[in-house]
Amino acid sequence: MIIVIKPGVTENTSAPVFEYIASKGADFEVTKMPHGDIICVDDGNMALDAAFLEGLDAVSSVMRVTEPYKLAGRKFHPEASVIDVAGKRFGGGEFQIIAGPCTVESGEQINSLASAVKSSGAGLLRGGAYKPRTSPYDFQGLRSGGLRLLSEAKALTGLPTVSEVMLPEHIPLFDDVDLLQVGARNMQNFELLKALSRTDKPILLKRGFGNTVRELLTAAEYIMAGGNKNVILCERGIRSFETSTRNTLDLSAVPVIHKLSHLPVIVDPSHAAGYGAYVEPLALAAVAAGADGLIIEVHAEPGKALCDGGQSVSPDVLAGIVKKANAIRQIIL
Amino acid sequence: MIIVIKPGVTENTSAPVFEYIASKGADFEVTKMPHGDIICVDDGNMALDAAFLEGLDAVSSVMRVTEPYKLAGRKFHPEASVIDVAGKRFGGGEFQIIAGPCTVESGEQINSLASAVKSSGAGLLRGGAYKPRTSPYDFQGLRSGGLRLLSEAKALTGLPTVSEVMLPEHIPLFDDVDLLQVGARNMQNFELLKALSRTDKPILLKRGFGNTVRELLTAAEYIMAGGNKNVILCERGIRSFETSTRNTLDLSAVPVIHKLSHLPVIVDPSHAAGYGAYVEPLALAAVAAGADGLIIEVHAEPGKALCDGGQSVSPDVLAGIVKKANAIRQIIL
Amino acid sequence: MIIVIKPGVTENTSAPVFEYIASKGADFEVTKMPHGDIICVDDGNMALDAAFLEGLDAVSSVMRVTEPYKLAGRKFHPEASVIDVAGKRFGGGEFQIIAGPCTVESGEQINSLASAVKSSGAGLLRGGAYKPRTSPYDFQGLRSGGLRLLSEAKALTGLPTVSEVMLPEHIPLFDDVDLLQVGARNMQNFELLKALSRTDKPILLKRGFGNTVRELLTAAEYIMAGGNKNVILCERGIRSFETSTRNTLDLSAVPVIHKLSHLPVIVDPSHAAGYGAYVEPLALAAVAAGADGLIIEVHAEPGKALCDGGQSVSPDVLAGIVKKANAIRQIIL
Amino acid sequence: MIIVIKPGVTENTSAPVFEYIASKGADFEVTKMPHGDIICVDDGNMALDAAFLEGLDAVSSVMRVTEPYKLAGRKFHPEASVIDVAGKRFGGGEFQIIAGPCTVESGEQINSLASAVKSSGAGLLRGGAYKPRTSPYDFQGLRSGGLRLLSEAKALTGLPTVSEVMLPEHIPLFDDVDLLQVGARNMQNFELLKALSRTDKPILLKRGFGNTVRELLTAAEYIMAGGNKNVILCERGIRSFETSTRNTLDLSAVPVIHKLSHLPVIVDPSHAAGYGAYVEPLALAAVAAGADGLIIEVHAEPGKALCDGGQSVSPDVLAGIVKKANAIRQIIL
Repeated sequence: MIIVIKPGVTENTSAPVFEYIASKGADFEVTKMPHGDIICVDDGNMALDAAFLEGLDAVSSVMRVTEPYKLAGRKFHPEASVIDVAGKRFGGGEFQIIAGPCTVESGEQINSLASAVKSSGAGLLRGGAYKPRTSPYDFQGLRSGGLRLLSEAKALTGLPTVSEVMLPEHIPLFDDVDLLQVGARNMQNFELLKALSRTDKPILLKRGFGNTVRELLTAAEYIMAGGNKNVILCERGIRSFETSTRNTLDLSAVPVIHKLSHLPVIVDPSHAAGYGAYVEPLALAAVAAGADGLIIEVHAEPGKALCDGGQSVSPDVLAGIVKKANAIRQIIL
Repeated sequence: MIIVIKPGVTENTSAPVFEYIASKGADFEVTKMPHGDIICVDDGNMALDAAFLEGLDAVSSVMRVTEPYKLAGRKFHPEASVIDVAGKRFGGGEFQIIAGPCTVESGEQINSLASAVKSSGAGLLRGGAYKPRTSPYDFQGLRSGGLRLLSEAKALTGLPTVSEVMLPEHIPLFDDVDLLQVGARNMQNFELLKALSRTDKPILLKRGFGNTVRELLTAAEYIMAGGNKNVILCERGIRSFETSTRNTLDLSAVPVIHKLSHLPVIVDPSHAAGYGAYVEPLALAAVAAGADGLIIEVHAEPGKALCDGGQSVSPDVLAGIVKKANAIRQIIL
Repeated sequence: MIIVIKPGVTENTSAPVFEYIASKGADFEVTKMPHGDIICVDDGNMALDAAFLEGLDAVSSVMRVTEPYKLAGRKFHPEASVIDVAGKRFGGGEFQIIAGPCTVESGEQINSLASAVKSSGAGLLRGGAYKPRTSPYDFQGLRSGGLRLLSEAKALTGLPTVSEVMLPEHIPLFDDVDLLQVGARNMQNFELLKALSRTDKPILLKRGFGNTVRELLTAAEYIMAGGNKNVILCERGIRSFETSTRNTLDLSAVPVIHKLSHLPVIVDPSHAAGYGAYVEPLALAAVAAGADGLIIEVHAEPGKALCDGGQSVSPDVLAGIVKKANAIRQIIL
Repeated sequence: MIIVIKPGVTENTSAPVFEYIASKGADFEVTKMPHGDIICVDDGNMALDAAFLEGLDAVSSVMRVTEPYKLAGRKFHPEASVIDVAGKRFGGGEFQIIAGPCTVESGEQINSLASAVKSSGAGLLRGGAYKPRTSPYDFQGLRSGGLRLLSEAKALTGLPTVSEVMLPEHIPLFDDVDLLQVGARNMQNFELLKALSRTDKPILLKRGFGNTVRELLTAAEYIMAGGNKNVILCERGIRSFETSTRNTLDLSAVPVIHKLSHLPVIVDPSHAAGYGAYVEPLALAAVAAGADGLIIEVHAEPGKALCDGGQSVSPDVLAGIVKKANAIRQIIL
């Protein structure tokens, strides 16, 4: 941590700063500068409270030097990680497309869509069973029954599956799911993250729409610190003042995450846009930005979807995206 | 729901709109206007997907008319609700101040602070036991031990208590806590909300820093739809581009919530500001804006706090806030 | 305009609504719905004040139906516009890359960079002369002298030029500039927009970092309503809570603008990112999203730039971007 | 400036950092820390480009130590400034309320409102003549004729006047206006700020809705650096994702500005809220937060206003706000 002292403060005024540092047992060095002293503190265990220091009269500003994501960060792990999901590899040059319906609605629906997903060339099947719906009056998913149908579709097509888990006690039900998704609204549900950290399942961690990239990496750290290193990150749009799309897809997050972390990052254009018509351009933009994968909502008849039909694309559009995405991958490598 | 059709579209183009409405079995009326037809749909059960409709060629825009918070909304419940927490009443003209440390650190600490809170004139005691910390390496709270210490402080002072719950299976441990807090990061942890809806405990529901007022009311609806009508809302700052405070306290939310909902709303200036020096002006501003209460972090020695010391105020400052808050209440009524 | 009346209001309560509509001389139709009456008003000249109506007791909500960008909008101009800048065409399938330094620093610098820009395959040369710097102590540009140097570089290379104008009285100085840029901070400097509307120069209108897409289109409307139809829009990042990049590049704006407007839209990845290392992935993402062009800051020695060197790329990186951008164009068409 | 070097980088890798610092002729000191070297640079004239440094391989992060608002900042001017506007004083314990219509519509309207403003106890009269309207089709103000009517109302009531200026060449027309307003959309119209810096008129500088507090202070610096020290700041709401009010009033800005700057800061609840019903609670909240004044839109018949009637309050409501504001001032002092 670096503490900038105001110019011209007396020893009396700066004394509480040094007392506080001493109370935490931290080593430090002082550099005298014309614009005020600079105190460099060795705060390896991050015990110092920056807001407390900034509240002291002598302090002009404070900067943290160490980031709280040692395991997720690239600093001590310079090589890109490759995460294997039932044979499908994400990161380090490996690229995957996940596709499927927002929600598993019936056996017929998921089986037919799973076949369409496979035909399109996408590599994994998504399908919601436990649904985090904004309103309690919206369809909440088929829950355990939905997971059973998803397993059947997996058996039928051979596609590894992805589904969202919302509660630690539900984790055993996801035994046959290959990639467990933590939804945007649960990115900082730390009890859920801790429970997932004690499994060895690959986790797809979606960025909260109100969260920074650094918070996303720190949430990944929760999972990794508990022993599970199989984390794939997902950008899916953040809240901004713009209202013409549901959220604002932050594609800068892709190169930023690649700089700060060794973990793979994929992009969800469907939830970001909220409208099917914008999914293809945003999906291809994500690929061009260097994303390690895509997750796309598909529905054969969007008008009949029980959930989020308006943001789904048809299997035909999906097939076009897969083809163009692969072509763009060739250009940017 | 209201659907605005583009000017001059053919019957062929608009046919899918009517087919979709018919497929949902909804009644509708069409008004011919110079700028295009207006379709008013009776979508009482909210089955229509606005994004899907907006994707159709004929549609210019779509507006929802019914809000998904029937129980939390003021439309069918015009009188302000008064929520009773162990004899302390919030809303409908009743005002309360909750104060205490971010975290219960020890029996000595919580007992001494509880006495100071009582002396200040505040009416309820807060103290965290299960802590949702951004980093896995930060102090995570004393958990069940913290709740036991909080109970002792309650017995000592007679102050009703407030503490945050993070997991449905922890709820039984909160039996002696009078007001169960749902933290900002869990505002849309719907499994937690559903579990709390099945208790009769008063719930303090904090607004997520990435969530709108309408989402806050819809989260309250989850608790109320399950049978628990004892909900107090809390504004605690939202994410914006401004970085001089931790979050941006949205005090407009106070009159907005009072217009849209009958539930009481209190304000947390400590988490919004992130700096102790800004807590008093923001607390008094919240009172002047008409808030039904305050929740304030207090610490005897902020420099020694295990959590968020920098945003705490001293018991002396708290006593000043309580006095001035009561004086402002007299002016605005 | 559509006005939604609350359910069950009396005639007395709704009377002020009808009086207000009558005072504006607007025609209307009333549809009785179970959730309250719907009033469809023919507000062709947009005389009704939505906020005033929403403040009336009887009103539940209000929706504008007509958008204030008749000339910029696609509704009455379905074909994409192609804007010609000294022979370089933007929009309707035509794509251009503008490149050059943030600021013209010297004849040697701009001439050498102009040659590099030409070699890279980019089609137009940018160079700032009047600089809108956040701090009064930062370099403010060479002003008219900078424009003279830019003209020399144009004569040398044959590249059409782009430069920012900040004040109506400066417009005559830009006679030899081919594309006049309105900077993000001046997007709603309406006196400047009006002055530019009275020229026949092509205008590059950058989106304000605090402005919505709809406001961008309405700012374009100022220029077009005054008689100048040669407007190219530019997305360059908006303010959000994310701090790892200078601004958040909103690439969804590209397909959104293409849906709402017939005007071409280009993307500035340099100002959005704020870091040279992120420029290439974001530039390629913009192309894949369907942008009609790019504007990129280049500097031969970023460490010696007088302005924004850190967000510039080298001429070599630019050449790579041009090549890959053209390849991606082939895929998405 | 403070430059944090990554741990374990070689001399070769860090060499470009030192070369860059040397090229700018800046003095520096290096402190060896376990988490990497810290370079403290004496960058008094702010010549170093932080983004460029952050792009170098050896650099982990960079922090500016000096703020670009030396004249507006409190560091070298610890006493609060009192700005005198024709005998009405703002700041340093002095509090004023400005009120009046959004726009001067006619002599009758402004004279009658001016009398009502005077009766309410407010101290200054606002009235727009040059209006920065989002749409070119909205009423653009009576321009110079509006200023003449405002002067008549001033002569009639003795109230000093406030009106917005949009273009440097209009400044002479504002000779009889006592406080010249720079609107939110022009906060970074630097040519306008420079022109105003060469007058000795008091300036009311409104915060842009997309701008930070630090940018507001740096915009004030433009005016002060040119020689005009009479600057009053104004918080009027910023853009956030919340849509229930027009903008999000950032009342934290009041204590933040008081900490960082010696200039007075007033609050505009009318533009922030966008709805007349929210003006009183937000106005009183601003006073309780410590604002040095208020600026409030008033209209006798909001339904007949030519501009922003929906956010205006009646003269009666204004009188209540003035009375309660003065009472709250007594409590918080």
